[in-house]
Amino acid sequence: MHSPEDMPSFPRATMDGYAVNAKDTFGASETIPSFLSVIGEVRMGEVPEVEIRRGEAVKISTGGMLPSGANGVVMIEYTHTVDSDTIEIIRPISPYENVIRPGEDIKKGKRIIKKGDILRPQDVAVLSGVGISEIEVYRRPKISIISTGDELISPKQQIVPGKIRDINGYTLQGLCIQERAIPNYLGICKDNPEELKNMIERGLESSDSVWISGGSSIGVRDITLKVIRSFKDTEILTHGISISPGKPTILAKIGGIPVFGLPGHPASSMMVAEIFLRPLLRKLRGVKDIRDTKKQRIRAQLSRNIESSSGRDDFIRVHLRREGDRWIADPIFGKSAFISTLIYADGYVCIPKNREGAYEGEEVEVFLF
Amino acid sequence: MHSPEDMPSFPRATMDGYAVNAKDTFGASETIPSFLSVIGEVRMGEVPEVEIRRGEAVKISTGGMLPSGANGVVMIEYTHTVDSDTIEIIRPISPYENVIRPGEDIKKGKRIIKKGDILRPQDVAVLSGVGISEIEVYRRPKISIISTGDELISPKQQIVPGKIRDINGYTLQGLCIQERAIPNYLGICKDNPEELKNMIERGLESSDSVWISGGSSIGVRDITLKVIRSFKDTEILTHGISISPGKPTILAKIGGIPVFGLPGHPASSMMVAEIFLRPLLRKLRGVKDIRDTKKQRIRAQLSRNIESSSGRDDFIRVHLRREGDRWIADPIFGKSAFISTLIYADGYVCIPKNREGAYEGEEVEVFLF
Repeated sequence: MHSPEDMPSFPRATMDGYAVNAKDTFGASETIPSFLSVIGEVRMGEVPEVEIRRGEAVKISTGGMLPSGANGVVMIEYTHTVDSDTIEIIRPISPYENVIRPGEDIKKGKRIIKKGDILRPQDVAVLSGVGISEIEVYRRPKISIISTGDELISPKQQIVPGKIRDINGYTLQGLCIQERAIPNYLGICKDNPEELKNMIERGLESSDSVWISGGSSIGVRDITLKVIRSFKDTEILTHGISISPGKPTILAKIGGIPVFGLPGHPASSMMVAEIFLRPLLRKLRGVKDIRDTKKQRIRAQLSRNIESSSGRDDFIRVHLRREGDRWIADPIFGKSAFISTLIYADGYVCIPKNREGAYEGEEVEVFLF
Repeated sequence: MHSPEDMPSFPRATMDGYAVNAKDTFGASETIPSFLSVIGEVRMGEVPEVEIRRGEAVKISTGGMLPSGANGVVMIEYTHTVDSDTIEIIRPISPYENVIRPGEDIKKGKRIIKKGDILRPQDVAVLSGVGISEIEVYRRPKISIISTGDELISPKQQIVPGKIRDINGYTLQGLCIQERAIPNYLGICKDNPEELKNMIERGLESSDSVWISGGSSIGVRDITLKVIRSFKDTEILTHGISISPGKPTILAKIGGIPVFGLPGHPASSMMVAEIFLRPLLRKLRGVKDIRDTKKQRIRAQLSRNIESSSGRDDFIRVHLRREGDRWIADPIFGKSAFISTLIYADGYVCIPKNREGAYEGEEVEVFLF
């Protein structure tokens, strides 16, 4: 988007003082000051009624409009009042000193924001400044979330042996909220193909993507896959990814809408969400730099060796601490089913599939949670 | 906050396979397998009805509850079916292999979140997992925002010479939204003490802090200061700060409520907001690490020398670009009244008052916008 006008639209003072013709100040000093007649004052927000000729000055405040004939402002600090109509100036100014000329900040036609930028406070401010009070933005994506598993109960229910409370449904809602998407939590689905098909249908009708977690056990994984396959216009993009944690992930499209089958283990499900779903949400939001490389990553030094199986990308959770002016990453080890590895982690490190680990002291890139 | 219960609450399988007594697998190999009788199957979400004795196995899926008598799970990949009641096992397991024991992920009484943490998706997830479906959080602070100046008009108005559209009111609202505070934009106030006093009163009644921008010209600065002084129970904490940009800032408290007088120049006002108001909002929100050091800062290499006046902290806007695996910071120079320096900037660098600049090639800490 380009500025429809010059900003500022008129020459403005950037200091409190006197608007003058710069030539009248040349050579001025404490010992040989220039004397000027004060012929008026600029009122804020108004076009000056006076016009300056050589030898004349007009009082002006920061932000005031320069009267015609003036091409600079002498700061009040470098003037002395001689009498009610006269000042002396004790320092010279160059032309346009302490003035912003029309368009000097933002020229008409200059690009101020581009498609795919996330609007920051200053971007909104500039739009206000050039008179753009409405712009088109991407709408917030809506995501349907389903948690599957006969073993699942709601967080509000008392725990009973054999059952566990739904966790993934809440991680995924949280991710949506962080990314300013709208989560549509459809709830817990039993390991029942018809019930699952109904829920996915409801999700497809009303949202931009459907995320199904659970189904990590053999039989149930089959249910999710079968149900996804049973839709008309369905396309399984992949079933199983060489990452750890997160291997049993299903990527599909039903009628063009991305549908994800996520692992049941909370930590695996969350890592898959970080790696695939966060970028998806940004893409749906129209964000250009979908990995937001500046804020999401920092470099840190590993405090311990990490071993990794080659042939898959390994995502290791780390805790960060400051040592002097650098960050130290402590790997958090633990079974992939542990959710606790995620709450004590500040981010994760990726060991790519062609490497067998990383060494203590090595500098690594940490993706921040 | 501490976990009210063990997670998991029962021994769970982390793999699909057979629940067994680990002793029955010791020494098992491809050539000399162990033979076990399959006496049933664990159904997801249910307490197993069967109990295992030596020489017996029960089919189990990931997430299933271990039957009593079993202390490990043999992965399905390391078993062969002999007949409908018998399997052979071709690899030994150690006790508790492929099992999470009660409390092994999160022990009852273990701290899961602490006061002042910002809840991330995984934190909410863990709370769900241990059955905490409601917690106390800090309410979102409400901020009243006033833009002062006879020269100001609304962004919706046509520009006329001498007038400029309000910018600061929108930067400050944007900052509030970023920090999940509630902005209460009271609008534009003329340079009139009574009108300003009324607006500040309205702000004080309904919000946690009042931010007044503008009044950077001498006469008007006096108005803001005088009006703040005229309240009962007022305390001026400082008037003028040795930072650039942002010198003419007023910090005050009226009846205990923080009141800020910000410079009129949009860039100065925004820098003061970044330096003082963002941390204030975080403090009001109860965030412990108010500078959020991990996400807000990155280290970069300066591409040019920066000169700075000693005696004041200088905040220099920079643009960031990637060169290999490091960030390069290009200083953006321009008059402090320029708003354009902020829209092309990714963050800023602080040159502290005891230094006279920074050198090309020097590593600096960039605070990200």
